[in-house]
Amino acid sequence: MERKSFTAMDCSVAQSLEVVGEWWSMLIVRDAFLGVTRFEHFQRRLGISRNILRDRLNALVEHEVLVRAPYSQRPPRYDYRLTDKGRDLWPVLTALRQWGDRWAAPEGPPVVMVHADCGEVANAVMVCEHCGESLTYRNVLVRAGRGRPELDVERRVPEKVNR
Amino acid sequence: MERKSFTAMDCSVAQSLEVVGEWWSMLIVRDAFLGVTRFEHFQRRLGISRNILRDRLNALVEHEVLVRAPYSQRPPRYDYRLTDKGRDLWPVLTALRQWGDRWAAPEGPPVVMVHADCGEVANAVMVCEHCGESLTYRNVLVRAGRGRPELDVERRVPEKVNR
Repeated sequence: MERKSFTAMDCSVAQSLEVVGEWWSMLIVRDAFLGVTRFEHFQRRLGISRNILRDRLNALVEHEVLVRAPYSQRPPRYDYRLTDKGRDLWPVLTALRQWGDRWAAPEGPPVVMVHADCGEVANAVMVCEHCGESLTYRNVLVRAGRGRPELDVERRVPEKVNR
Repeated sequence: MERKSFTAMDCSVAQSLEVVGEWWSMLIVRDAFLGVTRFEHFQRRLGISRNILRDRLNALVEHEVLVRAPYSQRPPRYDYRLTDKGRDLWPVLTALRQWGDRWAAPEGPPVVMVHADCGEVANAVMVCEHCGESLTYRNVLVRAGRGRPELDVERRVPEKVNR
């Protein structure tokens, strides 16, 4: 890896980027959510070099985001499937997609999501798991958690002062 | 940039990674949400080389995630503040943080979020903006959007088949 490791950084955002912060990783995860399981199929869709793809798949398996399951013995061939840890990346992927739809898709969203339960094309919005009301940077405070009791922050995200 | 550009890739996830997929970018955005505005302060918190930090800040300004506002003329000094586009990354950051809390924080979350409206420590969960019910990979379909009418996908995310 051509970068400093974030492992020592005491932050869950940094820890997550340690696993999926590499550019290709989230696109591999995206394709896995769309049902892609095989090396050749990932390679065709991503247009990525075989070496880079092999490295990224291995790293995702090592981090238990994907699991490798043999589907052929001779020659040895594998399916790559999302684990629970990998499936739990769905909110990250969804948030990234929606941000891109809003800020980098002048022709409109390439893909939309349909909520099967209500049948509507819909975006995901974040709500508080406790009270169910809207959760945004405007109505949260951050506070030290169990993993870092000495943290010296308890603050609201600063109010908007710019355009 | 030492990588292939995702610009040509017709996908909002890829477009988002084009802007914030670089490892340091999301940590800069994280710190901006925590109120950091100055080069020296970012540098101290991130432990990053000044050249890399300058490059990343410039890229974020160029992509209009941050805006540079002068606070001193002699010497010329700037604050870096989140734009609306940058603030709209809050769900991405929150999803990344929560994933790290769950899968990479054996000591517990370094930071927790308090919902100011209800006063509880809470995670964010994703719900359908239309009906308000839970939205997960299990109850969505994806479908071609305006930006890519020829897309040949309409499928539910495959059901879980592995551990």
